[in-house]
Amino acid sequence: MFIFTSIIHAEAPPNEDGEPRARQIRLSEVKQHGRNAETQWITKGTRVYDITEWIPGHPGGEVILRAVGGAVDSYWNIFTIHKKQEVYDILESYYIGDVDSTDLVDGQVPVDHIDDPFENDPARDERLMIHSQRPCNAETPTTELLKFVTPNETFYVRNHMWVPETSLKGHTITIELPNGEERIYTIQDLKDNFQEVSITATLQCSGNRRKHMTEESRSADGLPWSVGGISNAVWTGVRLRDILKDTGFPIDDLPDDAKHAQFVGAEAYGASIPIDKAVDKRGDVLLAYQMNGQSLPHDHGFPVRVIVPGTVAARSVKWVNRVVVSEEESPSQWQQRDYKCFGPNVGGNPDWSTAPAIQDMPVQSAITSLRDISSQFTQERDLLQVNEREEDVVAVEGYAFAGGGRSIVRVDLSTDGGRSWHQAELLKDLDEGEGGHKAWAWTRWRSVVPRHMAGGCFVVKAVDEAYNTQPGEYEPCYNFRGNLTSSWHKVTYEPSAGSEA
Amino acid sequence: MFIFTSIIHAEAPPNEDGEPRARQIRLSEVKQHGRNAETQWITKGTRVYDITEWIPGHPGGEVILRAVGGAVDSYWNIFTIHKKQEVYDILESYYIGDVDSTDLVDGQVPVDHIDDPFENDPARDERLMIHSQRPCNAETPTTELLKFVTPNETFYVRNHMWVPETSLKGHTITIELPNGEERIYTIQDLKDNFQEVSITATLQCSGNRRKHMTEESRSADGLPWSVGGISNAVWTGVRLRDILKDTGFPIDDLPDDAKHAQFVGAEAYGASIPIDKAVDKRGDVLLAYQMNGQSLPHDHGFPVRVIVPGTVAARSVKWVNRVVVSEEESPSQWQQRDYKCFGPNVGGNPDWSTAPAIQDMPVQSAITSLRDISSQFTQERDLLQVNEREEDVVAVEGYAFAGGGRSIVRVDLSTDGGRSWHQAELLKDLDEGEGGHKAWAWTRWRSVVPRHMAGGCFVVKAVDEAYNTQPGEYEPCYNFRGNLTSSWHKVTYEPSAGSEA
Repeated sequence: MFIFTSIIHAEAPPNEDGEPRARQIRLSEVKQHGRNAETQWITKGTRVYDITEWIPGHPGGEVILRAVGGAVDSYWNIFTIHKKQEVYDILESYYIGDVDSTDLVDGQVPVDHIDDPFENDPARDERLMIHSQRPCNAETPTTELLKFVTPNETFYVRNHMWVPETSLKGHTITIELPNGEERIYTIQDLKDNFQEVSITATLQCSGNRRKHMTEESRSADGLPWSVGGISNAVWTGVRLRDILKDTGFPIDDLPDDAKHAQFVGAEAYGASIPIDKAVDKRGDVLLAYQMNGQSLPHDHGFPVRVIVPGTVAARSVKWVNRVVVSEEESPSQWQQRDYKCFGPNVGGNPDWSTAPAIQDMPVQSAITSLRDISSQFTQERDLLQVNEREEDVVAVEGYAFAGGGRSIVRVDLSTDGGRSWHQAELLKDLDEGEGGHKAWAWTRWRSVVPRHMAGGCFVVKAVDEAYNTQPGEYEPCYNFRGNLTSSWHKVTYEPSAGSEA
Repeated sequence: MFIFTSIIHAEAPPNEDGEPRARQIRLSEVKQHGRNAETQWITKGTRVYDITEWIPGHPGGEVILRAVGGAVDSYWNIFTIHKKQEVYDILESYYIGDVDSTDLVDGQVPVDHIDDPFENDPARDERLMIHSQRPCNAETPTTELLKFVTPNETFYVRNHMWVPETSLKGHTITIELPNGEERIYTIQDLKDNFQEVSITATLQCSGNRRKHMTEESRSADGLPWSVGGISNAVWTGVRLRDILKDTGFPIDDLPDDAKHAQFVGAEAYGASIPIDKAVDKRGDVLLAYQMNGQSLPHDHGFPVRVIVPGTVAARSVKWVNRVVVSEEESPSQWQQRDYKCFGPNVGGNPDWSTAPAIQDMPVQSAITSLRDISSQFTQERDLLQVNEREEDVVAVEGYAFAGGGRSIVRVDLSTDGGRSWHQAELLKDLDEGEGGHKAWAWTRWRSVVPRHMAGGCFVVKAVDEAYNTQPGEYEPCYNFRGNLTSSWHKVTYEPSAGSEA
């Protein structure tokens, strides 16, 4: 269904049937309505649109400015999210005319050369499990998930667009306050003027384990992340609260119009967090310029990104160049739409405003490794000592994590598909206080199970310090976006395969 | 098994068989070892114990001093928790001799008159569902659970001992700091010198819904609370953080030896919370002297109690007369033992230190009312308008609540035992900001279901703002103390009964 309400813009004479004929517009004129013009036009197919009024409300932010003055088609081939009726309808409401046939080649607008926005994307480690290349979405392999601190090169990558071109010296972060005042900081400003802090924090994509939801319940929209849409690193930078304070913003006595801190990345991604989290002394929100002791890799936000520990990774905006203290949440689609959950009965195109944007995450755990350890082959003979005698065992390992800085207090493992349970050993990877003010890092766990007790299916569930636990089934927690899958992780066990989850 | 290691105290000559004979002690001598003596003795049966060294470690606190200088038997008949081998063993290690036979009547120590500690217990509303009278444990009836603010007289009562004798003028609160300094405040001091604040907060007993765990899984220790071990009230008082600040304690720069705030009640109950919660500006921890606009009722802590919103009610100590800022948690049994959860495989007498004391609670919901509404009988005709036509309906109502100040974002209701779900309406009982800094109050919900869709069993589950949800089954979440039962609440529906849950 097209909406023709804007056809009154058309100024051309009627066609042969006496209907008003669309205005014919030369591509040279379209080109004059680019980024810096008074009004912005685009073409799609052979139709021309004046989208000036739409730009401020574009869910994807200012990235739309890349396309103005030319054809949007190439961009929509990259950002295929646009290819749906709802978007077509919006676009049609801005229709002003057709491309003059003089400029058409074989009836089509010639494809301009557009700068490939992905040209700065770095080479990636071959061990990453790639779900999509453009934008890059790649999960950490299970072998690497066994490490408490994930190496930079195998840290999962979840990019919403390309990796923007940034530089250490040229990059600035603009802080905008509710009264409209702005302050600009370079990376060197951050390093020179604020206390440097390091925290160990786990980032998790809201789509982590979506694959399991799709397999155990129904198909959900989005990439089929398995257990590796999560990683853990040591982040070094400065506290956002310190910077906000430096601008003169009253962090200890928040004005009524300061409810959110919005973040915008250099590639145009945007998201926000509640201001209380942003200024919380124990919230540990950082502008981070180092990851595991090295400069941030390009894939992870070079030269600076936000780290919002305990919060869904979608709020830890990479390549951040703007922080806006505002009364409203970020207008981006990633705040207003994608990162939300609805009930199992809701599908299609719900009223997105009825669900809150994901911030804290629910308690989660997964099995990342099953290893047969036999007295015949192993060098890990110490693991074979079970119940005071040596026997073949299965070593089961994985992670557990809860949002909001809540610690993991227990991991229950079942060797019989969920009928009976025992407690896995929680590994103590951090000394008290090492990781920041709360439990921002995942908890690794391990259980060594005598081979004869391994009954075909291992199941794990974790308990956080509020004694929240994971749901057993998938269908009652199904949501059509497949976000925050946290139902019991079940892994089939086949002896002697030495299998990995 | 008795432990005789302390029999070396005995000074009596050997008996006929040449074994050392126990020392014979007159009751008049026992009486001299009372509360204010240098050493404290008690009798149990015909045996005498010097428990001086034990008193500081008594899990129940100083209440033990009520018994010293006489027989403990009557107290153990009240506090039956003592009647187990572990306690007998401890007591025997303090054995010093036997009651002189001269003082025995029919071979027994005559029962002293002891002051009935429950003599101050108030009369209670007849609508409360009494689980135990001494101490009083009584739940709110389901009709009263339909109100957003629970009236004082039907607010659930969970007393661990008697209601102590207190007075508005005589009551003081002593604040003890880590350096040993103390400051004493009267109720009038609180009212005169600190900002008065009101918050709406729900208190929930960790045993709420234990009945369901026992019925659906296995028997659990403790009283069989149904859905009414929870209530909601408006609490008025002063912020604990303001008082701590007034003592000179550095609430914004906590010293390393300040990790917990312990609370002691006038009847000797004790518990603690993390110091971060106690001083958190957004934590809203109060010393409250009003409940729903009236002086605190005696059953609820007159003249002053702690309110720790979002935290298990066991930390909201009633009749509080002492606050200790300390490096350690409260030594009481209610902090060190009872209010903890273990895995479903753990029973008996576990190593209690391996589980953390319950503070925040998991997401919870329950059905409190099922009402048949028929066009023949009802005055609530507006509820019959479903899908644009009038039909007979079932009105399903209840509450949802999450610990830690996390709001409820969704309540899913199933009319077919959990196979399919729809969303209940969440009632907006509070305007923004009315309830304190976070979501401390429960969320009432309602769903009006066409009668023909009510399929025998209603099931409810809630989702909190971190998208934690309740587990479906009971057995995988079983814990032998029956704490924090939060599995899906299922209520069988029989049409036309007009039944209430």
